[in-house]
Amino acid sequence: MNGTTPQPTARTRSWWGWGRTDEHPDDAECTAMGALLPGTLGRPLPVPRVRDLGIGSPAVEPPGSLAHLVSADPADRAAHAMGKAYRDVVRALRGRPGRIPDLVARPADERGVADLLEWAGERQVAVVPYGGGSSVTGGVEYRGDAHRAVLSLDLTAMGRVLEVDAEGRAARIQAGTLGPALEDQLRPYGLTLRHFPQSFEFSTLGGWLATRAGGHYATGRTHIDDFVQSLRVVTPAGTSSSWRLPASGAGPSPDRLFLGSEGALGVITEAWVRLQERPRHKASAAVSFTGFPDALRAVRALAQSGLSPANCRLLDAGEAALSGAARDGCAVLVLGFESADEPVDALLARGVDLARSHGGRYDDTPVGASGPHAAPSGDAAVVAWRSAFLRMPYLRDGLARMGAVAETFETAATWDRIPGLIEAVRTEVGAAALKATGHPATVNCRLTHVYPDGAAPYFTVLAAGRAGDEVALWDDLKAVAGEVLHRHRATITHHHAVGRDHRPGYDRQRPEPFALALRAAKGALDPRGILNPGVLVD
Amino acid sequence: MNGTTPQPTARTRSWWGWGRTDEHPDDAECTAMGALLPGTLGRPLPVPRVRDLGIGSPAVEPPGSLAHLVSADPADRAAHAMGKAYRDVVRALRGRPGRIPDLVARPADERGVADLLEWAGERQVAVVPYGGGSSVTGGVEYRGDAHRAVLSLDLTAMGRVLEVDAEGRAARIQAGTLGPALEDQLRPYGLTLRHFPQSFEFSTLGGWLATRAGGHYATGRTHIDDFVQSLRVVTPAGTSSSWRLPASGAGPSPDRLFLGSEGALGVITEAWVRLQERPRHKASAAVSFTGFPDALRAVRALAQSGLSPANCRLLDAGEAALSGAARDGCAVLVLGFESADEPVDALLARGVDLARSHGGRYDDTPVGASGPHAAPSGDAAVVAWRSAFLRMPYLRDGLARMGAVAETFETAATWDRIPGLIEAVRTEVGAAALKATGHPATVNCRLTHVYPDGAAPYFTVLAAGRAGDEVALWDDLKAVAGEVLHRHRATITHHHAVGRDHRPGYDRQRPEPFALALRAAKGALDPRGILNPGVLVD
Repeated sequence: MNGTTPQPTARTRSWWGWGRTDEHPDDAECTAMGALLPGTLGRPLPVPRVRDLGIGSPAVEPPGSLAHLVSADPADRAAHAMGKAYRDVVRALRGRPGRIPDLVARPADERGVADLLEWAGERQVAVVPYGGGSSVTGGVEYRGDAHRAVLSLDLTAMGRVLEVDAEGRAARIQAGTLGPALEDQLRPYGLTLRHFPQSFEFSTLGGWLATRAGGHYATGRTHIDDFVQSLRVVTPAGTSSSWRLPASGAGPSPDRLFLGSEGALGVITEAWVRLQERPRHKASAAVSFTGFPDALRAVRALAQSGLSPANCRLLDAGEAALSGAARDGCAVLVLGFESADEPVDALLARGVDLARSHGGRYDDTPVGASGPHAAPSGDAAVVAWRSAFLRMPYLRDGLARMGAVAETFETAATWDRIPGLIEAVRTEVGAAALKATGHPATVNCRLTHVYPDGAAPYFTVLAAGRAGDEVALWDDLKAVAGEVLHRHRATITHHHAVGRDHRPGYDRQRPEPFALALRAAKGALDPRGILNPGVLVD
Repeated sequence: MNGTTPQPTARTRSWWGWGRTDEHPDDAECTAMGALLPGTLGRPLPVPRVRDLGIGSPAVEPPGSLAHLVSADPADRAAHAMGKAYRDVVRALRGRPGRIPDLVARPADERGVADLLEWAGERQVAVVPYGGGSSVTGGVEYRGDAHRAVLSLDLTAMGRVLEVDAEGRAARIQAGTLGPALEDQLRPYGLTLRHFPQSFEFSTLGGWLATRAGGHYATGRTHIDDFVQSLRVVTPAGTSSSWRLPASGAGPSPDRLFLGSEGALGVITEAWVRLQERPRHKASAAVSFTGFPDALRAVRALAQSGLSPANCRLLDAGEAALSGAARDGCAVLVLGFESADEPVDALLARGVDLARSHGGRYDDTPVGASGPHAAPSGDAAVVAWRSAFLRMPYLRDGLARMGAVAETFETAATWDRIPGLIEAVRTEVGAAALKATGHPATVNCRLTHVYPDGAAPYFTVLAAGRAGDEVALWDDLKAVAGEVLHRHRATITHHHAVGRDHRPGYDRQRPEPFALALRAAKGALDPRGILNPGVLVD
């Protein structure tokens, strides 16, 4: 069967900041947010304009046979120059964006991708694969030799669900399908991929696959890797097509080489992915903890219990306050269960009991009806957290306009390292920010994903910036954070990918023989080095 | 902390057949088995003797510094010449075993492995990594140029659990640790790896990792891959050591390149693996089905239900009869649940209900107490199956001594392909055996592992052989089976590895760009081509 064509998004994407322009905080909101952070600017930096960038003619022109796939429009090119990291946003605000690509291509099929790669190979044009453009690690930005022409390869014209195997719960989906369009096309079948990264609305299946995105589930299988049956990948050396299999032991997994390859080995064009029935039963609760160590123990017990909560996100006191989940200095555990066939209330009750046995407090009376140490109402806190979660990137851009540093980074480590790691990040990144700006920084932490053997902490750093010098400040803080992660053997990224910003940390973490193998693989698949130069290997 | 030293196995391993010599069926048992298969020999082939092989002096000698790690004993060398496939057993029975390695090395630590590889590289000696030697796909046998010296690198002197993180439920374990010794060393901690392949007693952690072994669980995470936190791998280009992490999104997974590399990219020396609490609650039942299609639907429903049975093995009528699980022409589903913290009777009841809703019959009265169409007692059938499961390889060797073909192979495919695949294997392999021997063959099937999106069928072929020509007959049947698998896009192996016997099927299944990448990786890590030549890439 053929899928239906997805609806185009009606509202306007921002070329320089997160998401949609009509969701951006206005000047008054920015000013109000800035007032909360001592040392920020008194008024917001102006919204940057493409026309101020002075974008010239492209340095390269495609042959006539490819002209219909390619745009040289300055606004299009500006929107494809960078991802959406804080570092990217402030560069746009300061009128110094990353390298503007010469061309943006939107192939409609795999043939188009292959033709573009062939042409790029002949002309030594650098090709930067581009899905939703939500990279926060410099994954979609060219930073190589200035003389080289750059093509941004936007996959979003390949946005269809091509085939659904309802009995086997799987679908063949084009890589450029954005999250909402993907779910829309699966809904008539009662099926879902249930992969909901924070960037869901602005990221694509291909982007998730190329970056090993972390998804909806807070426990168990959450990385997109585990949902892949097979991949098609166009490389300069030919198209790789793996068999659609539930499992295999035939040699090293071909798919696992391309998962996480971030466009450096090939362009993922489609995948068969595993689906699930849409959940019909859901229940969630917010459990609060006076002490963070208690909360960590509770979360570990939950991760090891076999209860498999769909949501098990632990917010430290600062993060709970920031998201409105609690304002009493407590850490909050957002705990949720879901199932397609059975009520989950009993599971939730068992989960809450387990959390209580480690010092958690849960009170299901409405907010305000109980004493000062009662946890917030489960529902209210969960809703507050969810809404803040989706709003966060927009607020970050508002803070950036006020000259603040508003950065996030994430990692994962085994349980034995978690308490020391979190403490060291708080202390050392906080101290570095204070030293650099003269103002105290807020460093919050939440655990986004937990495993029986470890957890994935996610950090938010809020600080006054150094006016006009935000990028250097960011680079300094990032370097400090990278040092802490390395010292604690915590991965440089659990689900944000390596991109260009995490290369130093990645190079130190990656075993050298694997680096040799990866470089050799790159040489075999991309002998002219046109694919996303600077990513993963040189 | 340091682990305890494992107990050495007291009884004698067979150099030519499965397992221990004192478990082998004697001549009378072999004769009785042979009588069940028309066309087999009247009396068993004699048990082969090492001294009849005329094993000469090794063609190569190690330097004095490595001499203490190396054995040139003919019995040792004969025992390391091949794995334990039917093909290997009949070659030994016919006095034509595979290439006898010149030397067997047993390094006691990683330094020893590295030193041996360095020496082998200088002398161009082929190195065949060897764990428990239970390969059934020609994985531990050298089949290259006759002039080349061959070293069998036996890892079993590295058989210790080195470290246990009880809180984080993980352990650092040497690759040469055999299954029973591994579990023995974890038992004091109340933890288990719970990886129980049929070869458990005679295979090692390193072997499981190098071949992506399938384990205990019939649903969900069963491949050893999913239990790996980190690996250490000695390659000729250096030692790869990945960080111990619960999860990571930093580039393609380094571990996944070595998992399934079958000794062709490096020698796995140790791993941090994820453990579980030992289950305290278990319950199982045998459900019978008159029709195999009903049984398939029931198993698919169970795999998609979220009930996550630990055991969910479906035996077709022939397999059920062979194992004693049923003798009434019914297919039998062996269904089991287990948990470390909660009783599982309610889960089992739900599982049985689901199976019943697809035509399954379950009767918990004792065998013989009910009508002819009642299912066997759950417990009795489960015990019968389990015991036959472990005994099967010994019986296979007994049949081989009677000149029979007794071969097994396994695969995996998505649900849409499963019915046609199983039917085609039965028909085409059965027809090929009949044509080749003039006697009807038995082709049985069981599903060893099931997934929401597919299943892993395991086939047993029993037929009279062609006296003196068993290898050629086996090769013919294997080729027919390989064709059927390829036509149905079923993997050449779900958990037996590729080895040398599955290379033709593997080469056709593997995407060509991945083959290019793998060859390049091999060239980078093993530039002199000493590691397990002929495996995965040339």
